[in-house]
Amino acid sequence: MSGAMQFKNCCSVLVTGANRGLGLQIVDSLASGGFSPGKIIATARNPESAQKLQEVAAKYPNIHIITLDVLSQESIEKCVEEVAKLLQDEGLNCLINNAGINVLADFNTVTADKMIENFHTNAVAPLMITKAFLPLLKKAASRGGAGGSRSMGIQRAAVINMSSLLGSVELNWGEKADTFKWYPYRISKSALNMVSRCMAVDLEHDGILCIVIHPGWVRTDMGGYEAPLSPEESISSILSVIGGLTEKDHGSFLDFTGEMLPW
Amino acid sequence: MSGAMQFKNCCSVLVTGANRGLGLQIVDSLASGGFSPGKIIATARNPESAQKLQEVAAKYPNIHIITLDVLSQESIEKCVEEVAKLLQDEGLNCLINNAGINVLADFNTVTADKMIENFHTNAVAPLMITKAFLPLLKKAASRGGAGGSRSMGIQRAAVINMSSLLGSVELNWGEKADTFKWYPYRISKSALNMVSRCMAVDLEHDGILCIVIHPGWVRTDMGGYEAPLSPEESISSILSVIGGLTEKDHGSFLDFTGEMLPW
Ligand SMILES: NC(=O)c1ccc[n+]([C@@H]2O[C@H](COP(=O)([O-])OP(=O)(O)OC[C@H]3O[C@@H](n4cnc5c(N)ncnc54)[C@H](OP(=O)(O)O)[C@@H]3O)[C@@H](O)[C@H]2O)c1
Ligand SMILES: NC(=O)c1ccc[n+]([C@@H]2O[C@H](COP(=O)([O-])OP(=O)(O)OC[C@H]3O[C@@H](n4cnc5c(N)ncnc54)[C@H](OP(=O)(O)O)[C@@H]3O)[C@@H](O)[C@H]2O)c1
Repeated sequence: MSGAMQFKNCCSVLVTGANRGLGLQIVDSLASGGFSPGKIIATARNPESAQKLQEVAAKYPNIHIITLDVLSQESIEKCVEEVAKLLQDEGLNCLINNAGINVLADFNTVTADKMIENFHTNAVAPLMITKAFLPLLKKAASRGGAGGSRSMGIQRAAVINMSSLLGSVELNWGEKADTFKWYPYRISKSALNMVSRCMAVDLEHDGILCIVIHPGWVRTDMGGYEAPLSPEESISSILSVIGGLTEKDHGSFLDFTGEMLPW
Repeated sequence: MSGAMQFKNCCSVLVTGANRGLGLQIVDSLASGGFSPGKIIATARNPESAQKLQEVAAKYPNIHIITLDVLSQESIEKCVEEVAKLLQDEGLNCLINNAGINVLADFNTVTADKMIENFHTNAVAPLMITKAFLPLLKKAASRGGAGGSRSMGIQRAAVINMSSLLGSVELNWGEKADTFKWYPYRISKSALNMVSRCMAVDLEHDGILCIVIHPGWVRTDMGGYEAPLSPEESISSILSVIGGLTEKDHGSFLDFTGEMLPW
């Protein structure tokens, strides 16, 4: 079953970093899937130069491209304004904080600036973006799912944060810890996991589901050509997981197959 | 038994943020304990105005006060130089990254700047300080413990990072999550936990032990007057735990009683 089929009752999805890699694949898979959301908002910091995204958007009228540099508060606020106009009273059902960077550095080469740069993009930006979209998420959540249902899930409102297995403190041990000794990246993703857990606690009473997900090791610019998964494989699986989320997943750390990961 | 007795075979200890709160108590308890380390290096960003620390140091000749602003790379490097002169070939046995701040903000009031400020002091600074002191820690570790023993512990070399229960992602759920919804602080301590785990992986082959510890909720400027523990109680217990650390504790998250905490 194509993952996108699960998005049957989800009216709107917003994706950050949608010009390439996993973000672009999410947009493409959602648009070409059997039950495509009414509005797919594909954001990128430089839409003008997002050739591939433009091509995909030309094929599907439900894709809306909007500028968003996740590091800029001004850009975030401008994006919210445009999205609010587009969605009006519907609100936003699903926010996918996907944009991320890997500032490569090990113990010897890491600096304070590299740590802060990675932390800002990968952990702080998803928090600031979720804060800014809260009114729209609340609007969708208060309308409820199909038939006004109060169950949690993407048919109501959800925040999905793209984390990484490398952000698991528990799993960073033994053989598994011998590779990818990337301080800024690992620490930024651990921080994102706590950001997500804190938001899950605070957004629960509004009926907004919040999780972090590990996409697997995927062949993108970041994942490199040696990665075992294609973007299509990872995202098809991720969309199934996201489409099937319920209360019981709220506040958790899942991988692309839906398995729970340890913090 | 006084915790400080366990410091019998530890020649040197360095503490950051030693002018007040838990840092000052560590220095005081170590100096007044039965088996005081040969050299206690008490660092503070403004030693001139550190009245209480000066008073304690006046009583014990093994306390050495050195300037260290944990946010300044220049200050870190100057401090390392002075400590190197003081310790010479002995190296440094125990580095306690204690200095920390709590930039109060909840979901509504948090900003990117507040997140980064807290992250810099609580997670990045301990990393940059440990990097800078690595040659001195390695020197101590390569000399070995009593009789040249290769067992890990403070008689050889150890890095102790002061974290917090509030940095546990796992425990930030249910009833426990209803209080202290401090985003910058919680996220900085989760990040510190990953910093510590990454360092444990990298420092292991040099024989340097590395852990994070939660001091309990303690009556200091940060903990407030409602906290159940006095600084003496917390630090007496912490020094026992630190004094008794062995290989099996390497890379873990302990509380002040020595219990393991979940990430
Ligand atoms: N690939 C993997 O194996 C893997 C594994 C685990 C987790 N992940 C996570 O999955 C997410 C997507 O990864 P990917 O493999 O698709 O990475 P990627 O190919 O490097 O793409 C990263 C995306 O993030 C965007 N981005 C970065 N900084 C931005 C900013 N300030 N404002 C707006 N957009 C920004 C990039 O836009 P520009 O083109 O403008 O730079 C790009 O669209 C990331 O969070 C990553 O950490 C990936
Ligand atoms: N008290 C508790 O209940 C509790 C609970 C869990 C964890 N902790 C952790 O335990 C550690 C000590 O806490 P505490 O209760 O003693 O806090 P505190 O009373 O607020 O003291 C904080 C110490 O950190 C120092 N510091 C802050 N920024 C610094 C910088 N840039 N350079 C040098 N020193 C700096 C302060 O120096 P200045 O005087 O110059 O500001 C002060 O000495 C912290 O890491 C805290 O997060 C405390």
